[in-house]
Amino acid sequence: MIALDVNNPSCLIDARELSFQLYDVLDVETLTRRAWFADHDRTTFDSALEMARKLAEERFRPHHRKSDLEEPRVVDGRVRLIPEIAAAINDFASSGLLAAHHGYAAGGMQLPWVVAQACYAHFHAANVATFAYCFLTIAAANLLDAFGSAEQKQRYMRPMLSGRFLGTMCLSEPQAGSSLADIRTRATPLGGSRYRITGSKMWISGGEHELSENIVHLVLARTDGAPPGVKGISLFLVTRRRLRPDGGPGELNDVVLGGLNHKMGYRGTINTALNFGERGDCIGELVGEPHRGLAYMFHMMNEARIVVGMSAAALGLAGFRVSLDYARQRPQGRLPQAKDPSAPPVMIIKHADVRRLLLEQKAYAEGALALGLYCARLLDEQKTVEETSARERAGALLDVLTPIMKAWSSEWCLRANSNAIQVLGGYGYTRDFPVEQYYRDNRLNPIHEGTNGIQAIDLLGRKASMNDGQAVRTVATTMRVDIEAANALSAVAAHAAQLDRALALLQDTTATVAAARARLGDALPLSNATSYLDLFGHVVIAWMWLRQATAAATRIQNGAPGLRDFYLGKLHTARFFFRHELPRVEHCAKLVAGLDDTCLTMQDTWF
Amino acid sequence: MIALDVNNPSCLIDARELSFQLYDVLDVETLTRRAWFADHDRTTFDSALEMARKLAEERFRPHHRKSDLEEPRVVDGRVRLIPEIAAAINDFASSGLLAAHHGYAAGGMQLPWVVAQACYAHFHAANVATFAYCFLTIAAANLLDAFGSAEQKQRYMRPMLSGRFLGTMCLSEPQAGSSLADIRTRATPLGGSRYRITGSKMWISGGEHELSENIVHLVLARTDGAPPGVKGISLFLVTRRRLRPDGGPGELNDVVLGGLNHKMGYRGTINTALNFGERGDCIGELVGEPHRGLAYMFHMMNEARIVVGMSAAALGLAGFRVSLDYARQRPQGRLPQAKDPSAPPVMIIKHADVRRLLLEQKAYAEGALALGLYCARLLDEQKTVEETSARERAGALLDVLTPIMKAWSSEWCLRANSNAIQVLGGYGYTRDFPVEQYYRDNRLNPIHEGTNGIQAIDLLGRKASMNDGQAVRTVATTMRVDIEAANALSAVAAHAAQLDRALALLQDTTATVAAARARLGDALPLSNATSYLDLFGHVVIAWMWLRQATAAATRIQNGAPGLRDFYLGKLHTARFFFRHELPRVEHCAKLVAGLDDTCLTMQDTWF
Repeated sequence: MIALDVNNPSCLIDARELSFQLYDVLDVETLTRRAWFADHDRTTFDSALEMARKLAEERFRPHHRKSDLEEPRVVDGRVRLIPEIAAAINDFASSGLLAAHHGYAAGGMQLPWVVAQACYAHFHAANVATFAYCFLTIAAANLLDAFGSAEQKQRYMRPMLSGRFLGTMCLSEPQAGSSLADIRTRATPLGGSRYRITGSKMWISGGEHELSENIVHLVLARTDGAPPGVKGISLFLVTRRRLRPDGGPGELNDVVLGGLNHKMGYRGTINTALNFGERGDCIGELVGEPHRGLAYMFHMMNEARIVVGMSAAALGLAGFRVSLDYARQRPQGRLPQAKDPSAPPVMIIKHADVRRLLLEQKAYAEGALALGLYCARLLDEQKTVEETSARERAGALLDVLTPIMKAWSSEWCLRANSNAIQVLGGYGYTRDFPVEQYYRDNRLNPIHEGTNGIQAIDLLGRKASMNDGQAVRTVATTMRVDIEAANALSAVAAHAAQLDRALALLQDTTATVAAARARLGDALPLSNATSYLDLFGHVVIAWMWLRQATAAATRIQNGAPGLRDFYLGKLHTARFFFRHELPRVEHCAKLVAGLDDTCLTMQDTWF
Repeated sequence: MIALDVNNPSCLIDARELSFQLYDVLDVETLTRRAWFADHDRTTFDSALEMARKLAEERFRPHHRKSDLEEPRVVDGRVRLIPEIAAAINDFASSGLLAAHHGYAAGGMQLPWVVAQACYAHFHAANVATFAYCFLTIAAANLLDAFGSAEQKQRYMRPMLSGRFLGTMCLSEPQAGSSLADIRTRATPLGGSRYRITGSKMWISGGEHELSENIVHLVLARTDGAPPGVKGISLFLVTRRRLRPDGGPGELNDVVLGGLNHKMGYRGTINTALNFGERGDCIGELVGEPHRGLAYMFHMMNEARIVVGMSAAALGLAGFRVSLDYARQRPQGRLPQAKDPSAPPVMIIKHADVRRLLLEQKAYAEGALALGLYCARLLDEQKTVEETSARERAGALLDVLTPIMKAWSSEWCLRANSNAIQVLGGYGYTRDFPVEQYYRDNRLNPIHEGTNGIQAIDLLGRKASMNDGQAVRTVATTMRVDIEAANALSAVAAHAAQLDRALALLQDTTATVAAARARLGDALPLSNATSYLDLFGHVVIAWMWLRQATAAATRIQNGAPGLRDFYLGKLHTARFFFRHELPRVEHCAKLVAGLDDTCLTMQDTWF
């Protein structure tokens, strides 16, 4: 057995990496000039990051494997989870991180969302399954914060922010996974905002447990007589236990566990089929206005999609770090130019192909992390910038970047995890090392919160054409500002020129599809949506690498005491992405702009 | 839960597919004109295939999930496996399939190797872990057949062909996974062919069990005073139990189980650390001549590498078939051109992106299958063709195609399995369906029998340059014969022209690397070996699709009663490969021929 300490508590996410992204690339310190963040400075941010790292390493990471081996199960009708999960969630709640970005009035820390997301990256990397209970609760609380009544915020959101109640989102049904237009769960009015809820939901993470006093389910359902399709969907808040007048948990609310889904990854996150109102006795509360449920839920879904991408990125970083440590410690083989069999073997990091496996991981995972934090920074912009135009700009960027963050990151960071296995060779596929579990955990990310195919259709079918292509133009304009800045730096000017060409190709391709849709309808132009997402995704990640390379080159110019190697690594990885990855976009663009009909014209009977 | 019968016994490998490959593409009936195969005809081939299909479906497939859930374990010092494994192996042996290609004199069926491989595909697809015990035995017996003494064949090979003894290959050691030059296991002469064996081996599949009377380990070791590196390695036959004078199993031979490796896939195949001669009492027999062990073992390894590729292909086919059945039965969503929410949802196979996920699977898995059977056909050629030049040609083709079959198939058929999960959505990652297990099983294939990085170095560093590039020229000449034939058929002429250009690019790239090695040494030119394998692999699989398309177009011209849709599917999948996949080679060629130094120049300290 290899003597690699996989529980080395400092190894999963390099602290330099998060600092680089936040301060060098995103310049988040400027946020502290805004009134909402005025109490903060780099010291308070760093304290939060260090607290998160320590908590993640000490309380989440140690049961990563155990929660995989000992899945949630039902004993005598009650859900049993390993006790470490409740303990970790409890500590997370006590730390205040559930309310990190909420205002002081709500018991929060009033941290920027981007800093909170950087903190959360440590938890995704340490134990994505246990952290899922937390981030589902954070997302559900955000939804109530945005659309709930004052009373709902007081009765439900506040206990969620302190961890007394945990949250879920209940969208899918057994007959309708991605197709929300077809959901059948019904809501019958009982007067006021109270409704009787009846129906079955599927794939509900965190759907049943006794980790907390109560569970707050956010449930999509149809009111009687609602119009068909997505325009007839309303949002309801349904608790596992009804609330007593004092707000404490009372009697059960007829939300019944239908069964557990046994997954290949994320095993510590209980995943359930739930039956609402089997006995006709499940009471829910309407959230916001009737028939606006899908719009509300998309507020949560969009956040959740970015979080899925962040989870993929963090798993990519974790696998990268473990395989990097391994490659530095494992002697094997000799270099091509030194074949003397009596010479000692070299550490495998000396082999060019192992470096490729590591560079790909670094390029994908740090690229995805950069995009995820960029998106989080945009959410802070939407929330705290004064000018309407800047808010609208942030919104347009998020419209386009959200499906890319979800789909690109989950696709390519899964490949990163596969590379981590490959670096470890046979050890990589054994359960003595965590990389095979990262790979299994990460395999869920291209599916949940909307499959990557759905993201591609969302990007090409909706986002690329909305407001006559305004959102894509906003992305291009924003990207060109960074290209201009990079043009002035000799270390990155060639990358800037290459990105400029790729961006032009993307814009031409987008225009070609728009014209084709007007001429031919949607079927053919949208049939290569995934290739469009591949194209757009690689352009956006190249942009993220240009931004990182620009920041690194600037820091090197300014001296960079102690971090020179780190910055040189950033520059070299950017070079890797521009040479090895970005050229792939040409083929994608050809398929999309050429309106290739191979997928569309394949016939069922020919398979 | 979805009502898909995943145990539908006819679904894993389409019988039409194997018939098409054997008869339409490879024309294996012509082999029956050779004396060795004279007793055979299509009827006997089809009987063997049908017998294999039935046995695989009825005796191997039913415990595929169980053998994953209930891994091999050690109880009171003895290995415990679920009983279905022994029962299946026993039935396999009774069927004669262990000796399928051996001569009648050895108790075999004298079937062509290519037909035997087609039979085995059913077992890989049904239960790759249980079948591993069989194919390791087949490979070990082949090695003894080629290099063992008459007595060794009688005493060891014959009981292996009947399943009384099972076989293993013992190469890797804990400190030397892929680097055989560094193995330390020692062999001390005891007189005659007997040696005392001492050392530790790692990753030994089938290394310890009581499935059979005995286990025959083929072990690489160094004799005292042997030269360093691979030139000092000899091959030894070491049994778990010593043989009694009557050939039956006698006392234990000091081969001690050091531990089990717990893997993410292939879980039913016990994988062990073995200690030889802990008490100084392990006796082995030299096979062949001293110091030629690695050459002998490569005979087995080359076969095993093709088998790994076949296993990857068969797992790809199995996932394809399950996800195809699912896509035909699962209603969800509506087409882009018909968004009326009150219209019923369509089967998901109607969605273009689902067709892409299926087309990719079909293109990768059937392409890999075609190459694996092509290689098997070449082995038959080596064995039975009379002309020396034809044998040499087959050998040269195999030299190049073996690392491609191993690495390309395991890389791309793993992607196929990922697509199968994606088609099933959330169901895909649950253990209610087999696709997540195919994906886990298949993840071992890019690593075992030499990592794909090793295959790439073998291809570019050795095979592309041996005999001044003769092997690559032989591949090109052979490919051009098929290109010429395709030029004459309008349905495939455009593909032929595209392949011709890709082949020229491959040859130019190969020449550029050869010139660079002469000028610069090996380090830089070999540093993009994986991109060269990607390039060569896609060209070879495009060739395989051209051959399939040519066969299909010819059959359609000739009427093709009853199989028209099947052949149209072949033509359309070829079109998919040529449009969506083959163009990827341009980027690979640029990296290789441009001597991109990004991987080579990355520094350890920059990570």
